[in-house]
Amino acid sequence: MIYFDNSATTKPYTEVINSFVKVSSDYFGNPSSLHQLGGMAEQLLSQARNQIAKLLKVKASEILFTSGGTESNNLAIKGTALMYKGRGKHIITTEIEHASVRETMEQLKKLGFSVTYIQPDQDGRISVKDIENSIRQDTILVSVIHVQNEVGTIQPIEEIGAMLKNYPKVLFHVDHVQGAGKIPLDIHGAGVDLCSISGHKFHGLKGTGALYLREGLQISPLITGGNQESKHRSGTENVAGMVAMAKALRMTMDHYSADLSKMKHVMQYLRDELQKVKEITVNSPKEGTAPHIVNFSVTGFKGEVFVHSLAEKGVYVSTTSACSSKQAEVSKTLLAMGIPEEIAKSALRISLSYNNTIEEAVYVISAIKETINHLGEVMN
Amino acid sequence: MIYFDNSATTKPYTEVINSFVKVSSDYFGNPSSLHQLGGMAEQLLSQARNQIAKLLKVKASEILFTSGGTESNNLAIKGTALMYKGRGKHIITTEIEHASVRETMEQLKKLGFSVTYIQPDQDGRISVKDIENSIRQDTILVSVIHVQNEVGTIQPIEEIGAMLKNYPKVLFHVDHVQGAGKIPLDIHGAGVDLCSISGHKFHGLKGTGALYLREGLQISPLITGGNQESKHRSGTENVAGMVAMAKALRMTMDHYSADLSKMKHVMQYLRDELQKVKEITVNSPKEGTAPHIVNFSVTGFKGEVFVHSLAEKGVYVSTTSACSSKQAEVSKTLLAMGIPEEIAKSALRISLSYNNTIEEAVYVISAIKETINHLGEVMN
Repeated sequence: MIYFDNSATTKPYTEVINSFVKVSSDYFGNPSSLHQLGGMAEQLLSQARNQIAKLLKVKASEILFTSGGTESNNLAIKGTALMYKGRGKHIITTEIEHASVRETMEQLKKLGFSVTYIQPDQDGRISVKDIENSIRQDTILVSVIHVQNEVGTIQPIEEIGAMLKNYPKVLFHVDHVQGAGKIPLDIHGAGVDLCSISGHKFHGLKGTGALYLREGLQISPLITGGNQESKHRSGTENVAGMVAMAKALRMTMDHYSADLSKMKHVMQYLRDELQKVKEITVNSPKEGTAPHIVNFSVTGFKGEVFVHSLAEKGVYVSTTSACSSKQAEVSKTLLAMGIPEEIAKSALRISLSYNNTIEEAVYVISAIKETINHLGEVMN
Repeated sequence: MIYFDNSATTKPYTEVINSFVKVSSDYFGNPSSLHQLGGMAEQLLSQARNQIAKLLKVKASEILFTSGGTESNNLAIKGTALMYKGRGKHIITTEIEHASVRETMEQLKKLGFSVTYIQPDQDGRISVKDIENSIRQDTILVSVIHVQNEVGTIQPIEEIGAMLKNYPKVLFHVDHVQGAGKIPLDIHGAGVDLCSISGHKFHGLKGTGALYLREGLQISPLITGGNQESKHRSGTENVAGMVAMAKALRMTMDHYSADLSKMKHVMQYLRDELQKVKEITVNSPKEGTAPHIVNFSVTGFKGEVFVHSLAEKGVYVSTTSACSSKQAEVSKTLLAMGIPEEIAKSALRISLSYNNTIEEAVYVISAIKETINHLGEVMN
């Protein structure tokens, strides 16, 4: 099996699972309990928070634990909208966001908010100027994805943040889900107010996520109750899951230091070889992309068919983001980049982890070529 | 260690953790992925949903997975409020709900909803008549806890459901978090529209929960995105957590069949012995309570102090619900039952699992007596 679908989800590291088991078995107390068993659980939770904060170079008090990236994005956006609606009801986002941002905006529109969607350029990149030009008196939030999840384009977060310093009433949310552990983001330096990450995207466990919330900033909670997570997210904390997430982030960042050049090498090989195939168009831009994502189309074949054919050879890739892949829609991101619908329909995404090797890439390229030949023969 | 705080959280069964590990390691795909690895994950998720539905005697399509009981309660209540606000903005609940219901009502009040809180009688029981008398033209929801989490009183859910059949526009939500696996609830028979459970309360894992949503009923999602869980709860599903929850519920229900009389015996012993101690008042009513919860006060001692003293003897109990225990408030439930503040301040809760034994109960009673003597000496 060659798993090249790491932007959909990753295989949890064995050490991460071991930590989860240890905490679930031996430190199963409720962190809110007054006794020692609760105290130990609370201490582990606090350590996990400190570790994640340190890795993201923010304060521990700025990390809220959630059930995943989708909840983090929802909490950031709705929490801001509901808290600051008295100040204004206009939000700026982009045409290339993950469904958890896009659908949240649609829900807010039904509640009377107005949303401006910024178009990307042909590389899938958002212009700082376009965002600035969209700012109104009643703008309360700008929400931009860091590493675009389908094509890998890195957005100019630092530049957007610098521009937004001139608009102190406009909050800045970044969906860092695909960036974490791959593309460093200086959260404090870039003036980011809210920033989402998801554990299972970096070899942690599903059902774990975090939201960075800048010190002093208040947002309206989505989930109320026992006032956990500084009153921003109630519910008994998933202590073992958060300890596991902290370990996964640390290990992924260690891999970043040790294996980034290997990942870049694998990606360069893939891109070079894909470009040589006449039926293939590479949709990801040449420059300014994350090293783990490449999007390409195989002319004449529906993405879904190709995914299944590759899976028969033990190669796992995807068409678009996993969250959208079953809805059989053509990628909104690719269309927004000006890619013709015919080509967008044939799009495939390869997404690497630090564990993927050049040998795997060689096999995948040959599997792709074989599949083109085989499907071509079937169709003719 | 004697763990008598099972209403705060339970120790996950070893088999539950093993299932989690197996799924996380071997079936780590994203259920939304088109390829086989996604398909296997989706199949496991579907099996977990079928199992839980079967155990709760409802349809699989009526089970939505969430991150826990607090999220389930929030989704049920806010989801109903936002979906049906056009029909009316009045909600009926009780004075004895868990914080996740109580605080959600407070949040809705800020959004213009009006909430009627029904007072319990001195046993902590809600009268069906009182609910019926509170129904107005604009009432859209009645939300009642099944097994009260601090004192164990069982609420007349079936009777409330029967009465509500005369008011077809009023939806009925039941917080079944403390009841699941202990007190059977005929969800369909009682005409319940929404029903919350939490995995970690029955030896599953933290971060897992479910909401029963009656077939055909639509509610507004709290968390939007990739349209998982029939569009009611987006986010990559915690497959391993849900498989673990299904196993935990099945095992707990097996224990219910095999060990309920043992649990009742342990509880009866505890109640009999507690009643013999002159400093102790039992706050839980004699009849109509769940077999795993008893609430009592030790006159003259603050609950918190007593919890710590017992913990030094390796006995873990709680003061009030874990979610409220650090907020140093006197139990709203006990006050609503008419228990004087002085006694309510000294309240302790013992909550059993099916694994607790009579030997443990004997030790705990002697530890309680010793603690009374010891703390009494210290204070005099």
